[in-house]
Amino acid sequence: MKSLYPTYDVIVVGAGHAGSEAAGAAAEIGAKTLLITMNLDAIAKMSCNPAIGGIAKGQLVREIDALGGLTGIVADKSAVQFRMLNTSKGPAMWSPRCQSDRALYSKTMREELEKKDNLYFRQDNVVDVLTTNDGKRVTGVKTSTGQSFEAQSVILTTGTFGNGLIHIGETNFGGGRSGERASVGISGALEDLGFEVGRLKTGTPPRIDGRSINLDKLEIQYGDEDPAPFSFLTDSLPFQEEQLTCWMGDTNEEVHDVLRSGFDRSPMFNGTIESTGPRYCPSIEDKINRFSEKDGHQLFLEPEGWNTYEMYLNGFSTSLPEDVQYKALRTIPGFEEAVMLRPGYAIEYDYFPPYQIRRSMETKITEGLFFAGQINGTTGYEEAACQGLMAGINAARKVQGDEEFILKRSEAYIGVLIDDLITKGTEEPYRMFTSRAEHRILLRQDNADLRLTELGHKIGLASEERFERYKTKNEAINKVHDLIADYTVYPEKMDPMLEEQGTSTLSQPVKAKTLIPRPQLSIYNLLEADDELNQKVEAITTDEDVLDQVEIQIKYAGYIEKEFEMVEEMRKQEDTLIPDSLNYNKINSLSAEGKEKMERIKPETLGQASRISGVSPSDISVLMVYLNN
Amino acid sequence: MKSLYPTYDVIVVGAGHAGSEAAGAAAEIGAKTLLITMNLDAIAKMSCNPAIGGIAKGQLVREIDALGGLTGIVADKSAVQFRMLNTSKGPAMWSPRCQSDRALYSKTMREELEKKDNLYFRQDNVVDVLTTNDGKRVTGVKTSTGQSFEAQSVILTTGTFGNGLIHIGETNFGGGRSGERASVGISGALEDLGFEVGRLKTGTPPRIDGRSINLDKLEIQYGDEDPAPFSFLTDSLPFQEEQLTCWMGDTNEEVHDVLRSGFDRSPMFNGTIESTGPRYCPSIEDKINRFSEKDGHQLFLEPEGWNTYEMYLNGFSTSLPEDVQYKALRTIPGFEEAVMLRPGYAIEYDYFPPYQIRRSMETKITEGLFFAGQINGTTGYEEAACQGLMAGINAARKVQGDEEFILKRSEAYIGVLIDDLITKGTEEPYRMFTSRAEHRILLRQDNADLRLTELGHKIGLASEERFERYKTKNEAINKVHDLIADYTVYPEKMDPMLEEQGTSTLSQPVKAKTLIPRPQLSIYNLLEADDELNQKVEAITTDEDVLDQVEIQIKYAGYIEKEFEMVEEMRKQEDTLIPDSLNYNKINSLSAEGKEKMERIKPETLGQASRISGVSPSDISVLMVYLNN
Ligand SMILES: Cc1cc2nc3c(=O)[nH]c(=O)nc-3n(C[C@H](O)[C@H](O)[C@H](O)COP(=O)(O)OP(=O)(O)OC[C@H]3O[C@@H](n4cnc5c(N)ncnc54)[C@H](O)[C@@H]3O)c2cc1C
Ligand SMILES: Cc1cc2nc3c(=O)[nH]c(=O)nc-3n(C[C@H](O)[C@H](O)[C@H](O)COP(=O)(O)OP(=O)(O)OC[C@H]3O[C@@H](n4cnc5c(N)ncnc54)[C@H](O)[C@@H]3O)c2cc1C
Repeated sequence: MKSLYPTYDVIVVGAGHAGSEAAGAAAEIGAKTLLITMNLDAIAKMSCNPAIGGIAKGQLVREIDALGGLTGIVADKSAVQFRMLNTSKGPAMWSPRCQSDRALYSKTMREELEKKDNLYFRQDNVVDVLTTNDGKRVTGVKTSTGQSFEAQSVILTTGTFGNGLIHIGETNFGGGRSGERASVGISGALEDLGFEVGRLKTGTPPRIDGRSINLDKLEIQYGDEDPAPFSFLTDSLPFQEEQLTCWMGDTNEEVHDVLRSGFDRSPMFNGTIESTGPRYCPSIEDKINRFSEKDGHQLFLEPEGWNTYEMYLNGFSTSLPEDVQYKALRTIPGFEEAVMLRPGYAIEYDYFPPYQIRRSMETKITEGLFFAGQINGTTGYEEAACQGLMAGINAARKVQGDEEFILKRSEAYIGVLIDDLITKGTEEPYRMFTSRAEHRILLRQDNADLRLTELGHKIGLASEERFERYKTKNEAINKVHDLIADYTVYPEKMDPMLEEQGTSTLSQPVKAKTLIPRPQLSIYNLLEADDELNQKVEAITTDEDVLDQVEIQIKYAGYIEKEFEMVEEMRKQEDTLIPDSLNYNKINSLSAEGKEKMERIKPETLGQASRISGVSPSDISVLMVYLNN
Repeated sequence: MKSLYPTYDVIVVGAGHAGSEAAGAAAEIGAKTLLITMNLDAIAKMSCNPAIGGIAKGQLVREIDALGGLTGIVADKSAVQFRMLNTSKGPAMWSPRCQSDRALYSKTMREELEKKDNLYFRQDNVVDVLTTNDGKRVTGVKTSTGQSFEAQSVILTTGTFGNGLIHIGETNFGGGRSGERASVGISGALEDLGFEVGRLKTGTPPRIDGRSINLDKLEIQYGDEDPAPFSFLTDSLPFQEEQLTCWMGDTNEEVHDVLRSGFDRSPMFNGTIESTGPRYCPSIEDKINRFSEKDGHQLFLEPEGWNTYEMYLNGFSTSLPEDVQYKALRTIPGFEEAVMLRPGYAIEYDYFPPYQIRRSMETKITEGLFFAGQINGTTGYEEAACQGLMAGINAARKVQGDEEFILKRSEAYIGVLIDDLITKGTEEPYRMFTSRAEHRILLRQDNADLRLTELGHKIGLASEERFERYKTKNEAINKVHDLIADYTVYPEKMDPMLEEQGTSTLSQPVKAKTLIPRPQLSIYNLLEADDELNQKVEAITTDEDVLDQVEIQIKYAGYIEKEFEMVEEMRKQEDTLIPDSLNYNKINSLSAEGKEKMERIKPETLGQASRISGVSPSDISVLMVYLNN
């Protein structure tokens, strides 16, 4: 049937965290984009914890923002509390995180998306993906209202909705998320096209009536005094009032005993759920099972928003029978009278093992079809959002005839995430960690703009304003850096300060930059001690982000340089493209395992090939020789 | 299975417009109340037009508010435009209406509900109603998570969700509302208990992308310059900025021709939908079918909220095939490039013909079980909300051992609505009109507080603040009224003003109150003309509502008195209770039809009996004699 509607450049299916970024990016870049989602009143809904960012995830949000995405801006506008995590560690570990007003986040994302001229909305349920007869090229989608919509690129971001099955103890029923229906149809259609479909699971804790908790028994957790926004565009955070507080508590052996009493009726332990859950966001039953030596687990009681007493019990994700959840909950100190608004549950859903997509997020089987978000086997809003962004960019660029936009592992966590997915696949929900990024000293949250904004601007995503801000900042950094590198400081001015900071005094004048690496010192100490230097810096900038950046660059110059050298060394492999058409089976000297793995994964570069488990260094040498001929 | 949870006094199933009021009222009155609803993020969601009030509906909202309900307060806080309708007619016809921010309405209702101490929430899907073995007494409900919850009273307010079936042309699928799933289970359970279940249908227009409309071709409609709030507690309306505007357009013959081209594929006309829709909110296809002589129908394009370009096309409700909707839409002047965000659709749903409930909203079959809202065969938020309020009040009072709280037809539109429902039943969705209220000159929007706040306060619903406001106002009205009744005005002061207003001058001093009934004059004319009078009034009050009220009371004194006399005459019948146990078949002199109808409807008063169609005046005389013996 011919579509009733004009052909779009890009169709995005699903307006979760991936879909919102995908649609926003594609439209911003100039593609006529249609976002189809089940419920226009539930855009970018947080299915689980009301929070954005956190370790490594905060870095992802900063990168999304630097490129011109929406998550950072929306998070800033809807936050109720900000905390920078890991500040006791080096700058590569600093990770911003905020608590969000769940409803406001969703509302704000919709408002941001409505600002995009090229973006159109449709509330509907996609039930089929349309392709050419041979399945090799996507042509559009079909919805439950019987309509078809045509587009050159289609991005699927259906999250946990694909054949979603919700479990609470021995009860289970279809659903895409508590209170919402599952999505049925797409997986089958794609299986027919030859896609492999797998099952994963995830879970969420009960929601609590905050009035029922004895907060005196919990430890209070305040937001940062000087909260740092996610977005490089946010000048001040719109706190209506004071930041909200969170609360910390603990389980104990008694709680664990109650939980254990339900293990025989647990869908996780009695075989009802066979699919794998996220190892690093385990359910509470998983935790007490795997870490039976621990006699307590930390819990965070987090507000759901400005004007609600509904609270989220972070750390208590569970799919145990409700009676067990309830009894265990009420055994936690401070929770003796706890009232649940919704029980915890687990959900099983379809995903597409991600060896089936390329670095651009396009599927290998069907041209123009892109996957992003949870359906690639990841977990987390940030992981979903950054995939959505990249898929949106590439789907639009494909339509416009531009080359693929790829981020390297050395450029961004986003590059690490996608390379990991397509190279290593996922047997369990994939979550980002700093440890996954071998070049993490380069991929800091503080320099995401320096790394990525120019790229984002070049592809038409980062706005002019964002680009100007970046340029101004970057120039100031270089000027201050040069100034400090060259400027000589004298013992007269420095010594009192050095003594006060508990570090050795100077015996002779030195360059300012040689002092900054001392762990006791910050750039601000030098500026306070030397008024002339201070004035010279102030003549360049008063932006603390600039000064912080210069300090980090100087303090960690050694590590950073070494890391750049390593990146340089590997560049050759990373830049060596492997043609899609390469037939590994014909290259005799490859190991059998290497052949098999590479045939399946079809690495796009020699670098990617080298990271495939089972591909040996000698396989790489063989390949390199082969490709050079 | 024993419930895991404490027993509640009242359980409300569904948090639509009926459920929200029911839960709020029951909790406020002191009943420990549990509100169970499918999605806690979609409380009091407006399924159809983003507006509250309107003709006769505005009166309902004022009554709800006067009693201490929530709809008026929430409407005031979330309105984007206010208009008082029918101001060219007499005060009995004035009807307040507002356009609402759909998302804000829902958010605000949740916030208001969260303020109630005795109210608890549960996100869940009720699948069964629990009763004693004989089905004669309700004991609680069961949910899809397998939990049971116990209560002495249960109020069902499941709206259009019961076995909801959505139709768009020849496509249909289960759903409770676009984007949400249907509710399955309850109807069957109640049928087993002996309840009659019927089917009704309603429909909604497509939602429009406001950017795509050529507004120059439409007529603009501004809000009132001096907007009047719904709630007697609202002192000033929280407009963030200027009120939003609406737009008016028209269909024409060309549009109708396109629509007609789809009639063979219309579920309404080809027999797919058999249930009856609301006669007074007809679909556009209904309109052109029933009023084929009209060559155009008016349309209103209404904003969906402050920060969205989504718009609602009031007057274009349709379940025609989407291609027909779309083509017809684009034929409307100004809509040539219109883009739809969601197509229009019709929905069929279960309802319980309302002869099955009593004046208190309690079902006759199962004690403690109450029905309120759309499931009683009504349509409209306001109709649902006021039923919810009454059910909430009575469910709580029952638990507390208090007598039923009933509003008479002469006291409130709410009384008219409930009496109509239980007496006349509904074959089609019931909507309120001023013409349904025989005493409408008494039941004005302006005096809802004078009629009802004392009652609301007595039952513990209207707050102390509300009661004090009412008392202050009432006293001022009486004082000003007495003053004006007694005060003599002289030709010297009055004549220039009378001349200016174009009415005859005085030949001698008269009492001020004799002037006010003149159609050319308002109380304000007199105050301006006579400074002494003005000062005396100002010494009592400066509240314009008081002055308006006095003016109405004096201007329409004749009508009002006559109406009171009629009410008085009928009081005897209205106050004569008929015992539930009365066996009409044993009263020989009753007409056969009278017997049958009254056996079925079991009228609670002689007055109600007299309004049953088929019950003759002589039946009433027979009954009166019988009851007096
Ligand atoms: C119960 C639960 C627990 C979770 N726990 C955690 C956790 O502990 N830690 C963590 O980091 N993450 C957790 N997550 C994951 C997190 O919610 C997801 O990673 C993230 O929301 C994925 O974003 P997404 O955009 O891929 O999909 P989603 O946010 O799921 O959005 C999917 C969107 O697609 C729409 N859609 C689906 N199918 C269709 C269709 N056929 N047609 C039209 N629209 C469609 C939906 O309406 C929805 O808007 C949890 C999720 C769930 C449901
Ligand atoms: C398509 C459509 C068109 C309409 N058109 C008009 C119109 O033109 N004019 C007009 O005046 N009115 C119209 N209405 C009617 C108006 O929306 C309703 O009258 C009003 O919303 C009824 O309020 P309610 O509280 O009875 O039910 P609803 O507002 O329908 O609320 C029902 C609530 O119950 C919950 N629920 C349902 N089943 C369960 C369950 N088993 N367990 C837990 N929770 C449950 C739902 O989640 C929902 O929150 C229309 C409605 C629809 C759907």
